Amino acid sequence: MIYVVVYDITDNLVRGRVADFLRSKGLKRIQYSVFSGELSSSQLKDVESGLWMITRRKKKLDLGERLSILIFPLTNNQFDQRIFIGLGKENGGEGEEILW
Amino acid sequence: MIYVVVYDITDNLVRGRVADFLRSKGLKRIQYSVFSGELSSSQLKDVESGLWMITRRKKKLDLGERLSILIFPLTNNQFDQRIFIGLGKENGGEGEEILW
Repeated sequence: MIYVVVYDITDNLVRGRVADFLRSKGLKRIQYSVFSGELSSSQLKDVESGLWMITRRKKKLDLGERLSILIFPLTNNQFDQRIFIGLGKENGGEGEEILW
Repeated sequence: MIYVVVYDITDNLVRGRVADFLRSKGLKRIQYSVFSGELSSSQLKDVESGLWMITRRKKKLDLGERLSILIFPLTNNQFDQRIFIGLGKENGGEGEEILW
């Protein structure tokens, strides 16, 4: 199963750690705050617990701070049906050319 | 079918128009730059063309600018299996309390 991980994290340090962690687990960046990749159920658990470990260091949110990560399961077919609208390529915006 | 719309738009005006448009189409905000909702195939086409209309006004991207919208199809069951990791509720971060 493919999983799409979408995060909205205002804390630069935590956001950077999350991106590095997801990359280390073999997920690919498909948008600035979006990674995707094939994960088995045990790999998913590993990613989930790792993300909790990173985010748990943040005890509370100050006014205006956000720390939200959402993980969605998709089939390969659904992932292939994704629609891209915009300018430039479907990439991570940090020079990482991800898909096409 | 449920659709999750994820966008990364550096231009404040365009980003605001996209959010207003998605809200006007009945989609709910579940993260700062993520909306979701049930759409028929004709409604999906309507959303897609509307998003192209909004984004097409931007002719080119300056260095460091990003304009990317991704739309993923999910079943209700998959949407219910989504995983939320973070602090605070799964909301849009602008006071709009979306899900739970």
